[in-house]
Amino acid sequence: MTSPFGFKLENTDPSGARLGTLTTARGQVTTPIFMPVGTAAAMKAMTPAQLKEVGAGIVLSNAYHLENQPGSELIEKLGGLHRFMAWEGPMLTDSGGYQVFSLDKKTVKEDGVVFQYSKEGKAVQLTPESSMAIQNRLGADIIMAFDECVEYPTTYEYAKASLERTLRWAKRCKEAHKNPAQALFGISQGGLWEDLRRRSFAGLMDLDFPGYAIGGLSVGEGLDNMKRTLDFTTPLMPTEKPRYLMGIGLPEDILEAVERGIDMMDCVIPTKFARSGVLFTSVGKLRISNGEYKKDKFPADTSCDCYTCKNFSRAYLHHLFASNEILASTLASIHNVRFYMNLSFGMQKAIAKGEFAQFKAEFLRLYLRREDKAPASRPKSGRKGRPQKWEKRPQS
Amino acid sequence: MTSPFGFKLENTDPSGARLGTLTTARGQVTTPIFMPVGTAAAMKAMTPAQLKEVGAGIVLSNAYHLENQPGSELIEKLGGLHRFMAWEGPMLTDSGGYQVFSLDKKTVKEDGVVFQYSKEGKAVQLTPESSMAIQNRLGADIIMAFDECVEYPTTYEYAKASLERTLRWAKRCKEAHKNPAQALFGISQGGLWEDLRRRSFAGLMDLDFPGYAIGGLSVGEGLDNMKRTLDFTTPLMPTEKPRYLMGIGLPEDILEAVERGIDMMDCVIPTKFARSGVLFTSVGKLRISNGEYKKDKFPADTSCDCYTCKNFSRAYLHHLFASNEILASTLASIHNVRFYMNLSFGMQKAIAKGEFAQFKAEFLRLYLRREDKAPASRPKSGRKGRPQKWEKRPQS
Repeated sequence: MTSPFGFKLENTDPSGARLGTLTTARGQVTTPIFMPVGTAAAMKAMTPAQLKEVGAGIVLSNAYHLENQPGSELIEKLGGLHRFMAWEGPMLTDSGGYQVFSLDKKTVKEDGVVFQYSKEGKAVQLTPESSMAIQNRLGADIIMAFDECVEYPTTYEYAKASLERTLRWAKRCKEAHKNPAQALFGISQGGLWEDLRRRSFAGLMDLDFPGYAIGGLSVGEGLDNMKRTLDFTTPLMPTEKPRYLMGIGLPEDILEAVERGIDMMDCVIPTKFARSGVLFTSVGKLRISNGEYKKDKFPADTSCDCYTCKNFSRAYLHHLFASNEILASTLASIHNVRFYMNLSFGMQKAIAKGEFAQFKAEFLRLYLRREDKAPASRPKSGRKGRPQKWEKRPQS
Repeated sequence: MTSPFGFKLENTDPSGARLGTLTTARGQVTTPIFMPVGTAAAMKAMTPAQLKEVGAGIVLSNAYHLENQPGSELIEKLGGLHRFMAWEGPMLTDSGGYQVFSLDKKTVKEDGVVFQYSKEGKAVQLTPESSMAIQNRLGADIIMAFDECVEYPTTYEYAKASLERTLRWAKRCKEAHKNPAQALFGISQGGLWEDLRRRSFAGLMDLDFPGYAIGGLSVGEGLDNMKRTLDFTTPLMPTEKPRYLMGIGLPEDILEAVERGIDMMDCVIPTKFARSGVLFTSVGKLRISNGEYKKDKFPADTSCDCYTCKNFSRAYLHHLFASNEILASTLASIHNVRFYMNLSFGMQKAIAKGEFAQFKAEFLRLYLRREDKAPASRPKSGRKGRPQKWEKRPQS
């Protein structure tokens, strides 16, 4: 069986932003594309029909979480992940490598990682081989190599040793991967160091993956560090393969990443922020629980075409959050994911016309105009310790 | 302005079940009909689009809850309840009378009732006049008189005094009702006593309401008491006006009520049970969190045509509940409300053909076949004390 997977670079904007077409066994997706995250084979507070309606093209799920519950063998027996969650479009599963970063209870060894899901939970070992077996059983169209996503900040020595281990794991993943209908992407590590990223991509490209991801960003390093790292990292990546920046991000992060030649991104931010009442709009984020929206007859974003904005006022959304209605999460998630998809579509159109820089400038001019008091936002750059949960790569 | 409201009795089945057409300012509804409850101007875990898709014809909301949050004056200013919650179809608001029954902190006086919404909340007085003013501002197509729904069990003397007060309140409601586009229904009280129900309906019919409701049932009296009370109560009601049994109920309750000539019913049971993982099916209730469904590839109800059953397995629903996904509540609610609507449509067709008795017997033969261990079910008949919350008339 030959792989149905392919990537065609359609246009490169003067800025460096790329327009492409990703082909998978379950259809094509235009890039750059934001990929919503449904960790546990479910988009939080949204049905697949609603996800389709907001224009989602490819969605994520997580091998580690699904192996814990309900188990990949059961999902395979029930016809695979697509059928299980009723998503007919392209899907991508993460390998469990991010849990190396996000879970407290873990032990990293050469063979793999031993995790403890919860205090009460039993310990589980994940290796390159078991991650591949799980992802083969799940059957997503794109699967990810099992990597170690190191914490930020870390030492150069640890980052170096870790990326070498991740390379050895990548080789084992490639050997263990059994389903040619699924495209296996390699993941680069190496923190914020240019020589480590260079070494990482050299090693990955020797293995010749159909797509490459940048891991180890969006772990609390801040926007400036991310931009600086992308500046020297994307030039290391092959132009003819898709480039996936994992766990990004806020709209401003996405624009910076795409300008630096990134094609694919994913993040829990739109749905996670939605559930806490933070709505993305063309003129900035708004916290719908703020008193100023109690009597506001306008939709969340007057320029938005989503079901929520076409039917409901800010006053109604404010009321739903005040009443703890489940519908609050659903309507806010529909809006936020639509906002991210519209951002993707807007970028695509701009790149096709070679006008990405203007698009970015105009988007940010409006978007950075305002921000409600105390909206969820990124921790200050240089902040120590663990990043806010919502800043991480998808995990819940 | 003349009232757009009307009711046409289309057919009466040999059993006593009635087929009718209810006409409101916002369209027609065939009866008998189950009315889903969206207490706080929101169906729990369902969008209005999903509610429409499952075939809901008329939905309920609650004047008392909406006056607390966000306030009827705000809703009026924003264009009324229909526009606020984006439900274009017919709506009915309850008066707040049920809160006389369901809230602990209240004082009933001749003028009205003083409530305390929560321990911290401020006390609020509701009178026939204020309930009418609130419901006039909300703008539902059918509004309810402000009544006292007494607890079960109660004494004959209290029930008698209470029903007389409820009659005086009904007169005051009629005088205070200011919007002829809204049909005001009278509510009968009188507990399980035939002479009290007779007195109640005599008094209400003197006031000539366009529709009549039976209150004070579904308060823990049990199915046999409900049936006995309906046996002598519905014959007291005019045949040419719609008959609304408030707060009913389980599918078996609905069949018994319709057989006794009831046209309209409402209850939180389908959505409330859904959120706790209890799914109604043609062969009985199932508790989806039970281990037996973990690997079950079949839909919740193999004979159901809802979005949930057309797309998802019991195993997937089991997984969503195990993972505490919000989507669990949404998919289960879609199914349960569709089940109740299909029950309504099935009854309507049977009555049109004069075959209600056969329909009821066949439905119950299948439906009573099984019941999962520990599904939510009615308290044993004769049980003392407060009924289970989910057995009451809509309140949350």
